[in-house]
Amino acid sequence: MHGGLFTPRPEDAIHARIEGWCEAVRARDVESIAAYYAPGILAFDAVSSLRFEGLDANTQHWRDCLASGEGEMIFEVRDIAVTAGVDLAFAHFLNRSGRRDGDGREDAVWLRVTLGYRKHLGQWLIVHEHVSVPFDLESHEALIDLHP
Amino acid sequence: MHGGLFTPRPEDAIHARIEGWCEAVRARDVESIAAYYAPGILAFDAVSSLRFEGLDANTQHWRDCLASGEGEMIFEVRDIAVTAGVDLAFAHFLNRSGRRDGDGREDAVWLRVTLGYRKHLGQWLIVHEHVSVPFDLESHEALIDLHP
Repeated sequence: MHGGLFTPRPEDAIHARIEGWCEAVRARDVESIAAYYAPGILAFDAVSSLRFEGLDANTQHWRDCLASGEGEMIFEVRDIAVTAGVDLAFAHFLNRSGRRDGDGREDAVWLRVTLGYRKHLGQWLIVHEHVSVPFDLESHEALIDLHP
Repeated sequence: MHGGLFTPRPEDAIHARIEGWCEAVRARDVESIAAYYAPGILAFDAVSSLRFEGLDANTQHWRDCLASGEGEMIFEVRDIAVTAGVDLAFAHFLNRSGRRDGDGREDAVWLRVTLGYRKHLGQWLIVHEHVSVPFDLESHEALIDLHP
C-alpha cells in the first residue's frame, strides 16, 4: 500500500504544504498560492462574502486581498493540528495576518483557519478553506484584537 | 474490511450525524449535543473567543448560547458537502441560526460551518468545529445580514 522510504507520512506532507502556502502568501505570489487549491475549492473567508466558489473566484479574492495594504506581509501560523488519512486530511491553526510598514509598525489580526485537503494524482490540494475571526454578540463588531 | 450490507457509506453516516446534531440543537438538548463531540474537540465558534478547547469548555459554550435568547430555535442547514474516508471526514455547509418568537418573527443569521470528524470505536465524533460570519474590512462589522 502507501508508505515506504520516500513517501512522507500524510501528516508531514500536510505540514509541508501549509508551510509552502504561507511562503507563497508572504511573497504575494498569487500563481503559487493558487496552485495549492483544487479546481472545486469552496472557501469561507474572513471578509466580504459568505463564500467563494471555484478556483477563479478564490484566486481573484486572494489577488484583491494582497493588493490592499502597503508594506511587508505578515503571515505566521501557530498551533497547527493535522488529522490525515491516505488521501484525505484536514488541518486547523491560528494565523497572524497583516502588514509591517517601513518603520517596523505592525498591523495584524489573529485569524482562525481550517483547511480540508484531498490527495489527487499524488498531490495534496485544498478543497475547502474556512478563515474567520469571531464577533461580539452585543456590538456585532468583529473581534480583531484577540490574542492566543 | 469496512462496508457490507449494514454499514452505511461514510458520507451517509456523516449526513445522518449532522441531521441528528441539528435536531439536538433545535431541542436545546445540551447533553445530546455534547454526545456528538470528541473529548479533544477544538472549536472555533462564531462568537466570543478565538477558540474553545475540550469537551467541557465546548459544552459550557453551547449551554451559554442556548440560554441566551427567547423563543423557538431556528437551526437549519443547506448546501452540505461531505468528504469522507474510512475513519476520517470533514463537512461544510451553511447554517441559518436564531430564534422565532411567539408571533412568528424570526431573528436569524446565516453562518458558515465546517466540521471535522474521526470515527472512534465505530462512532463518528466531531474533533474540530469552525463556525463564523465574515466581517467588513472597512467598518469591522460582522456581516450578519448576508444571504446565500
